[in-house]
Amino acid sequence: MSKRYQNLRPRVAITMGDPCGVGPEIIVKIHLSSDLFVHCLPVVIGELKALQRAADLLKAAVTICLLGDLTELDRESRPGTICVINPSNLSQGDLAYGQPSQATCRAITQYIEEAARLALTGQVDAICTCPIHKAKLQQQGFPFPGHTEFLQGITHADHVVMMLAGPRLRVSLVTIHHALANVREILTEELIYRTIAITAQALTMDFGLESVRLGVAGFNPHAGEQGRFGREELELIQPVIRQFQGGPYEVTGPYSPDTVFLRAYDGEFDAVIAMYHDQGLIPIKMVHFNDAVNVTLGLPIIRTSVDHGTAYDLAGTGRAHPGSLNAALGLAVLMARNRRSRSLHR
Amino acid sequence: MSKRYQNLRPRVAITMGDPCGVGPEIIVKIHLSSDLFVHCLPVVIGELKALQRAADLLKAAVTICLLGDLTELDRESRPGTICVINPSNLSQGDLAYGQPSQATCRAITQYIEEAARLALTGQVDAICTCPIHKAKLQQQGFPFPGHTEFLQGITHADHVVMMLAGPRLRVSLVTIHHALANVREILTEELIYRTIAITAQALTMDFGLESVRLGVAGFNPHAGEQGRFGREELELIQPVIRQFQGGPYEVTGPYSPDTVFLRAYDGEFDAVIAMYHDQGLIPIKMVHFNDAVNVTLGLPIIRTSVDHGTAYDLAGTGRAHPGSLNAALGLAVLMARNRRSRSLHR
Repeated sequence: MSKRYQNLRPRVAITMGDPCGVGPEIIVKIHLSSDLFVHCLPVVIGELKALQRAADLLKAAVTICLLGDLTELDRESRPGTICVINPSNLSQGDLAYGQPSQATCRAITQYIEEAARLALTGQVDAICTCPIHKAKLQQQGFPFPGHTEFLQGITHADHVVMMLAGPRLRVSLVTIHHALANVREILTEELIYRTIAITAQALTMDFGLESVRLGVAGFNPHAGEQGRFGREELELIQPVIRQFQGGPYEVTGPYSPDTVFLRAYDGEFDAVIAMYHDQGLIPIKMVHFNDAVNVTLGLPIIRTSVDHGTAYDLAGTGRAHPGSLNAALGLAVLMARNRRSRSLHR
Repeated sequence: MSKRYQNLRPRVAITMGDPCGVGPEIIVKIHLSSDLFVHCLPVVIGELKALQRAADLLKAAVTICLLGDLTELDRESRPGTICVINPSNLSQGDLAYGQPSQATCRAITQYIEEAARLALTGQVDAICTCPIHKAKLQQQGFPFPGHTEFLQGITHADHVVMMLAGPRLRVSLVTIHHALANVREILTEELIYRTIAITAQALTMDFGLESVRLGVAGFNPHAGEQGRFGREELELIQPVIRQFQGGPYEVTGPYSPDTVFLRAYDGEFDAVIAMYHDQGLIPIKMVHFNDAVNVTLGLPIIRTSVDHGTAYDLAGTGRAHPGSLNAALGLAVLMARNRRSRSLHR
């Protein structure tokens, strides 16, 4: 066993996201709980000045400790201390609330790259990302739709799956950010197959489930009623579900979309496979608005994320709620522990 | 004021729906509460033998009273009595659980026609329908997708709207039972306009709201993000919403579909206008699985319905829950009172 594993608490890199948004404030808030340090060794990747400003704003009794590298983390991490790796050197002008500059946008990208590098080289066990403002980044030339695709690129992952995970309902999306009218042509058997397979593997490996029961949503109202309202269930979804028969996972459906999420919420499935964004996001937000976590499955690293945006209107008020970051961090720790315990038992 | 209005309790015709399903059982169950008679004068339209069988099954202490016509209702209606108009004469064979015969299907249609006739002629104030099995009826030549379209035909209504109404969330559907891939081409400005207008009028006239705030859902994820994921919001939905500006109703949107329903649930809107079936049905079933009522707006008569099917697997067990019928009846009574009080004040 390597020296690292003598300390059983996973190391989690928390990227600051946009320092002009609520990221620094919610990061400071979660560090105020000593519980955090019972479960993990957190390290923030982001601008020290923004953290200090948030600590001052919140009148938080914390010491901010700038680390040279991760070897210092075990020694410095303790309740009351925020350990930070700072790849940027932003000016006060770059930190104006709601107005990230070109330099800020470059720094935001660096935080994610640095966290990914630390995870890929095993220096941290998981990364947990605070919100970025996609449109602002894209205006500055960021060529990705969001975190997920950027991390997929950095880690050379073939295929990733966006899962929203709440305490009672988990949903994986087959398709994500597309015009609804284009979803049908994007949907393929291969995409559905991969989403199911990656979700089932993650639930076993990372979520630690002994067995996996997945409910697959149909595409049409009432799952098409045997072809009366569309044939996607018969021609696209059922054939994929059949491929999982006799395998290690219980994959069933396609179910009527208007009841499968409630059935999962009531305990019948460990996750639902949703065919398009709003099919999955509407039920998750109805029941887990404050405690759902966005998880990227299929990466070689563990990555969870808050499920909200930069909230520029709240930034600097101290009112942003750290609930989603807490939940995202908790899930990152759980996943890191499960993945480690599997690798130790091999 | 006519003699009828001396009795302020609305008369509600409850159609039995399929006598081979759970309809008769839930009808008997709701008659066991004397509360029912405080609020309305209920009259069942359906097969007496099926009601008697359900009463025997439930060992219910009720008298079933066959009416010749509605003039007898005021005299006969009282707690412990089920008043019934029976346009059919079915045999025991026609009443086999889960197996409606050709004669049964004909009778089911008659119940709906008779209730509509009573409502159109002012002999009842509202109708409340128990479930039918659409596929079984269609096999016997019933040429309508369901109750809603059948009643639209009988009453010669130009345009009707299906609303699902729960205690905290109401949703009106712009499109209903279509393959999802076809929804885009069915969606028109006129259809969206009519759905909004009919919903707003019904909330004022029938639900008794002083003012109306409607939230209109977008069609695409995040309501298209200014055209990044589809242009339906810009080209189809926004122009309709603008037509309501300066009018008596507060109509706003298009909102991101994954948050508008929660906002309505939390009190920001009196109803949400959903663009397609599952967009509206998924959130309703998540939060109002047992107490949502299906209401048809735009008919000249008041019609509410249970929000479940014939449940052939439960029929004859006595275990079917009357919650949805109770909620549907309660809403029918509320709507009838509001419509009547408006007509009295004219």
